[in-house]
Amino acid sequence: MSAEKFEKSKTIELRKKHVGPSCKIFFSHDPIKIVQAKGQYMYDEKGQCYLDCINNVAHVGHCHPDVVKAAAQQMELLNTNSRFLHDNLVFYAQRLQATLPEKLSVCYFVNSGSEANDLALRLARQYSGHKDIITLENAYHGHVSSLIDISPYKFHQLSDAEQNQFVHVAPSPDVYRGKYRADYSDPATAYANEVKAIIDTVHKKGGKIAAFIAESLQSCGGQVIPPVGYFQQVAKHVHKAGGLFIADEVQVGFGRVGTNFWAFQLQGEDFVPDIVTMGKPIGNGHPMSCVVTTREVAEAFMSSGMEYFNTFGGNPVSCAIGLAVLDVIVKEDLQGNALRVGQYLTNLLEKQKEKHPLIGDIRGCGLFVGVELVKDRLKLTPATAEAQEVIYKLKEQHILLSADGPHRNVLKFKPPMCFTMEDADLVVEKIDLILTGLYHIIAGTVLIAQMNEATCLV
Amino acid sequence: MSAEKFEKSKTIELRKKHVGPSCKIFFSHDPIKIVQAKGQYMYDEKGQCYLDCINNVAHVGHCHPDVVKAAAQQMELLNTNSRFLHDNLVFYAQRLQATLPEKLSVCYFVNSGSEANDLALRLARQYSGHKDIITLENAYHGHVSSLIDISPYKFHQLSDAEQNQFVHVAPSPDVYRGKYRADYSDPATAYANEVKAIIDTVHKKGGKIAAFIAESLQSCGGQVIPPVGYFQQVAKHVHKAGGLFIADEVQVGFGRVGTNFWAFQLQGEDFVPDIVTMGKPIGNGHPMSCVVTTREVAEAFMSSGMEYFNTFGGNPVSCAIGLAVLDVIVKEDLQGNALRVGQYLTNLLEKQKEKHPLIGDIRGCGLFVGVELVKDRLKLTPATAEAQEVIYKLKEQHILLSADGPHRNVLKFKPPMCFTMEDADLVVEKIDLILTGLYHIIAGTVLIAQMNEATCLV
Repeated sequence: MSAEKFEKSKTIELRKKHVGPSCKIFFSHDPIKIVQAKGQYMYDEKGQCYLDCINNVAHVGHCHPDVVKAAAQQMELLNTNSRFLHDNLVFYAQRLQATLPEKLSVCYFVNSGSEANDLALRLARQYSGHKDIITLENAYHGHVSSLIDISPYKFHQLSDAEQNQFVHVAPSPDVYRGKYRADYSDPATAYANEVKAIIDTVHKKGGKIAAFIAESLQSCGGQVIPPVGYFQQVAKHVHKAGGLFIADEVQVGFGRVGTNFWAFQLQGEDFVPDIVTMGKPIGNGHPMSCVVTTREVAEAFMSSGMEYFNTFGGNPVSCAIGLAVLDVIVKEDLQGNALRVGQYLTNLLEKQKEKHPLIGDIRGCGLFVGVELVKDRLKLTPATAEAQEVIYKLKEQHILLSADGPHRNVLKFKPPMCFTMEDADLVVEKIDLILTGLYHIIAGTVLIAQMNEATCLV
Repeated sequence: MSAEKFEKSKTIELRKKHVGPSCKIFFSHDPIKIVQAKGQYMYDEKGQCYLDCINNVAHVGHCHPDVVKAAAQQMELLNTNSRFLHDNLVFYAQRLQATLPEKLSVCYFVNSGSEANDLALRLARQYSGHKDIITLENAYHGHVSSLIDISPYKFHQLSDAEQNQFVHVAPSPDVYRGKYRADYSDPATAYANEVKAIIDTVHKKGGKIAAFIAESLQSCGGQVIPPVGYFQQVAKHVHKAGGLFIADEVQVGFGRVGTNFWAFQLQGEDFVPDIVTMGKPIGNGHPMSCVVTTREVAEAFMSSGMEYFNTFGGNPVSCAIGLAVLDVIVKEDLQGNALRVGQYLTNLLEKQKEKHPLIGDIRGCGLFVGVELVKDRLKLTPATAEAQEVIYKLKEQHILLSADGPHRNVLKFKPPMCFTMEDADLVVEKIDLILTGLYHIIAGTVLIAQMNEATCLV
């Protein structure tokens, strides 16, 4: 198929006719048609280039030739299900395991982050024999029914009656805007004690905790970095209640945080989750994902007698792609690049914070960075409309960035891992210009239509 | 990666170590390692060829060059999410729509049959504002939590307490072994009345029906072909209760039944479901699937205000693959081939039925055929061990077939659609020889281990 088959207006018309209206589009009043991409750049139908600061799925760079080659070669040879023995499956499982603490040794291959998190809940419930789940405020864990139940980011739109009685929401460990802030003596303990309090309440009502689930760094929830030591203490409380700790690495895994391969490792070597779920970047865009757990949990899951079969999960093509992604991360030192460029970007943004009162907080690890915009640095009044204005003005400059968080006022950086210092210079320079110009704009000119764009780029 | 990286024993060892033990393998005491496949043939690490009678996922033939080429070309160009405009998405939606009745016009692209059926339930519940689901005895609709709830094939292993109170099970419309058989005056009405009775009971208890869901032809449930007129009557009862009819075409769609492109069309032109879910064959092995519904249902889903976003669903590569599959079906007249070869195969099997008392029933449409083995044609005593023996003996002859159904006594044919009359001759000839030999085997020699193999090849 050629890069463009229809005029853009026809594409829009057909989309309106044949694609579910709940499936939103970026910049809906003037959407972008992308026909090609390479590395950290995307190209529209006119050949105009956009710098991509948001597509963490294209982890090793859009259309990486090594990944494309691995996929094509394996597709020519064999693509079948995991009920047949195949070396790609076991070699890939072995390679993934090698990136994790030793006790996380058993893999389940599935097709999406949603399938991974759903399976993680099943594993935890089967292992513990319990039903209740603790999730974090503003969390997003996926789009299937069981995950909307544990995603306040989604279910806050529902009535109380529609919310699942087995799900309990703990405060987001956000030391900027949350209940316990950076000036609090020990926010890690304070937030963990909140989880303990929920467990106690559940127990009093006769419930039992199956799992605590959290993204290792909250993404849609506003690029939140939990204080070090929080996960260890939560795990202690949850284990005592007979439950498991599920670390959702769907958005943040595979070296993005720079110092470590997995974001949960930022908490320290003494923290090991019971279940890790992976997704998005794992296949550089190919639909695949994985759940890794301990032998003990896997054996308990098997003891139910119910087989687990996933038609596409772990097929030789998906595994070949997964292996190629791991190889490119090492070969091109993308984790190191994330560390260096992430640090450079954060430093540039810190300087902007000194200059622009609108920037309330800069937080991040590697190439996972949030810039929280506030109208008042003491009251932390969310600068939601301003964040949208920045996103729209950047788009005019051919830079793709997004805003998220409960107040949709956090600019989110999660670019392909080949992002360079020059790219960082460019985007920060443009943000500087836009923020400078913003002081001259009357707040009312920001369109409501634009505010509605501030959806999560999960 | 070369075709084989490890010795087979090492592959088995690594699999035991790193892959969830709930993930079963074919012929577990002597599994097959497949390294290559083409058309309807699979090859092991020694180059031995197997005739594939079971992999409906490899719909247009394993590793079809047109599909591989379309995938590779699009992977080189662009693979990103559906928040950007892209022609492959809208063109594919348009092409899929053209195969369906006009009112089924709105598509949601997802990654697996499980994601599709989960979304179908969400659509039905949002549209109707109701919660209760009616499903069929022995049904299998997927592996995520919400679908195990509606899959008696899976949840019969659970205790009553673990079963979902909003799920109600109607008798399988099986005219061979079910409640109303071929000799019953009007089994379609009788089975539909059973659904009506469930609706009445639900209403009496204060519940409300969101949907009735059924595979258009039951696959794992034992290759069951519902009597014509059953779906129309069920739809009438369900609509009257404010619910929707979901036709699950994950196993049986895309021309497999020969006379029609969709299996629900076997019921007649006067039947149109409200939601159709697709999967397995849609991408010839690539992880993708689709839900199609009416404008009315789609608008109701949007009115909740909740966005639907699926990271990988509807990406340009998946859509390019989906388009290539549709093209090959037409170009190679695979629907016509399914009709002709399916009829030929069924005729050959009918002759076997005359010869072998063990064959109780032959049923099928196109290349979806079931052979039910019974020890007694009057009592219909399931010949479970014998079915397993046939499967194992066929494997020794390098033919891959499977057995399923609640009694695991139904031989299931669902080969790649390029299956030929010569292939049919070969497999039926081998079955003839095996069945002839079986009369001389003492029942006790059939290993329990082999009986445990009789899992669903979903």
